[in-house]
Amino acid sequence: MLSEHRFIRALLRKPVDRTPVWIMRQAGRYLPEYRAIRDKVKDFLVLCKTPELACQITLQPLERFPLDAAIIFSDILTIADALGLELSFLEGEGPCFRSSIQTVEDVEKLPIIDPEIELRYVMDAIRMVKQATHHQVPLIGFSGSPWTIATYMVEGRASKNFTKIKKLMFSQPMILHRLLTRLRNIIVNYLKAQIMAGADVLMIFDTWGGVLSCSDYLNFSLHYMQGIIEDLNSYHVKKVPIILFTKNVGQNVVALSETGCQAVGLDWTVSLDKVRLLIGHKVALQGNLDPAALYADPAYIQKAVQTILQQFGQGSGHIFNLGHGIYPDVDPEKVAIMIEAVQSFSTQYHKI
Amino acid sequence: MLSEHRFIRALLRKPVDRTPVWIMRQAGRYLPEYRAIRDKVKDFLVLCKTPELACQITLQPLERFPLDAAIIFSDILTIADALGLELSFLEGEGPCFRSSIQTVEDVEKLPIIDPEIELRYVMDAIRMVKQATHHQVPLIGFSGSPWTIATYMVEGRASKNFTKIKKLMFSQPMILHRLLTRLRNIIVNYLKAQIMAGADVLMIFDTWGGVLSCSDYLNFSLHYMQGIIEDLNSYHVKKVPIILFTKNVGQNVVALSETGCQAVGLDWTVSLDKVRLLIGHKVALQGNLDPAALYADPAYIQKAVQTILQQFGQGSGHIFNLGHGIYPDVDPEKVAIMIEAVQSFSTQYHKI
Repeated sequence: MLSEHRFIRALLRKPVDRTPVWIMRQAGRYLPEYRAIRDKVKDFLVLCKTPELACQITLQPLERFPLDAAIIFSDILTIADALGLELSFLEGEGPCFRSSIQTVEDVEKLPIIDPEIELRYVMDAIRMVKQATHHQVPLIGFSGSPWTIATYMVEGRASKNFTKIKKLMFSQPMILHRLLTRLRNIIVNYLKAQIMAGADVLMIFDTWGGVLSCSDYLNFSLHYMQGIIEDLNSYHVKKVPIILFTKNVGQNVVALSETGCQAVGLDWTVSLDKVRLLIGHKVALQGNLDPAALYADPAYIQKAVQTILQQFGQGSGHIFNLGHGIYPDVDPEKVAIMIEAVQSFSTQYHKI
Repeated sequence: MLSEHRFIRALLRKPVDRTPVWIMRQAGRYLPEYRAIRDKVKDFLVLCKTPELACQITLQPLERFPLDAAIIFSDILTIADALGLELSFLEGEGPCFRSSIQTVEDVEKLPIIDPEIELRYVMDAIRMVKQATHHQVPLIGFSGSPWTIATYMVEGRASKNFTKIKKLMFSQPMILHRLLTRLRNIIVNYLKAQIMAGADVLMIFDTWGGVLSCSDYLNFSLHYMQGIIEDLNSYHVKKVPIILFTKNVGQNVVALSETGCQAVGLDWTVSLDKVRLLIGHKVALQGNLDPAALYADPAYIQKAVQTILQQFGQGSGHIFNLGHGIYPDVDPEKVAIMIEAVQSFSTQYHKI
């Protein structure tokens, strides 16, 4: 039973034998077997949109490492692409859209989409992964947060100062609220479809919530994520644990823990002991090794893993992970060392 | 007497008539009079290195707005340039060095510099500003923090993931510590020279401290800033208040307040009331309006100013500022509105 898997149990803060571990971007460029596929196909988006390839890539890290979860190979911007903005990835420059959202008309003319049609490739990939793993491995589905997807839709690409969306936020907030409401509703349908396709856990990536002041974060980011969680928690067909991740969450970590999510993902700039002091055992915590620590030698990595396990302390409710996606130039051997360290050192924190 | 100026008094948490205000990058591209000079000279670094121009630019915002302080027009990377790395600024790409630091030999061969020789242009500009203002306007001198300057010296340019310096930090920390120690000592001499030239207040910009975990921040950033402050606080020739600013300071704000500095500068992602709850009245606080809020209409700006004043609350010890440098495309009229709002709304927080 997957509900008895240590990853699911840790998310629900039920006793486990050891701390579960997976890695953000575990299917990615640091793996030679991923680069081999990428060399042939080139276009990242084609990989996402070809369920057979997305499935194959999703499973690659699981064949190499004893990970406790798979995460579907996809991108946080699939929704914006499905809405007609035409996503592409420029080498070394990140995501780029052919058109962007500037006016209330741009928002109004966004089409109604059905995740099982326009985003069927994601659901198909999920179904394939579930089948290939004989439903034995917990699979994480995911989406970007409304705010984070909106930043790309308004800026048209990755941004440094978020000038365009902040101009909208500060000068015409109602246009932005309309866009965020649209995205909220689409994301709910998208994530429900992922559940129905077989996702066992959902994660919401709020990559850019940390560029907002506390009150703007509550109004323009957290509010909409909370709405999504409420809808999913009252989805009677099937409920799954939800992990919320905001990079540079800062003082908002308490509010994040009160959204109804089961776990909060943390980057490496906070320490788990301080977060636990603030929010206690209300939710599970996921994280939070600096991805750059995998450049260190084995002894350093082992010590860094021990420090994080110790910061979380005794008991269930910790999912070990990096604090952000793994870097493309990390040696996979270092990943093996990190996972092995989590597995061997964490049992002492789960003795009853 | 400048020691009776409200800016200096507020830094020392002595009673004032209203909250003082200045703006990070107040001499910069949002001002047409600055762009006029820039159009002629083109090269940003030439402006910094020509004391007459640096002085003229420093004074531009004071001629336009009733600001409570001037900040010398310069750059946080002057030291790295003086150390022979050859700084240049590429249009739209930020700072870039011809050579960078990779090995222990690179660190060892860095020359000994005398701020009054290699960085004399900064001191000359400070002396000119003091003379031009008849010693009536508080002048802020500044430096980048050792960690922040080191990121550029090792990466060679602005960075997203700080891969090179983190590789160094995680794999050969002693090389980095040597570099940071060198920078610490140079910065102390540089800031002492600025005091002697006439700087009334010093600010240390730790722009990139926020990309580190809490423990790495303490070891690789805060430790060296604290050393600088201790040296400056025991500089018997003349003492001046010191403002420390770390972007994305997060959980480290308490440690920052315990370094011996007189004020902590905060970006807009924290709220002053929560910070004050954490650190009380140990130090003054500077900040922290989102620079993008200046895109809003006048009514919004006035309300946002009021909110920040209210968050700090009653009493002296607040210096109003943006949470980061002003953006180049802001309308100077909006700056006038912000300053006027600080002046008119803040008196109520300073009634005895």
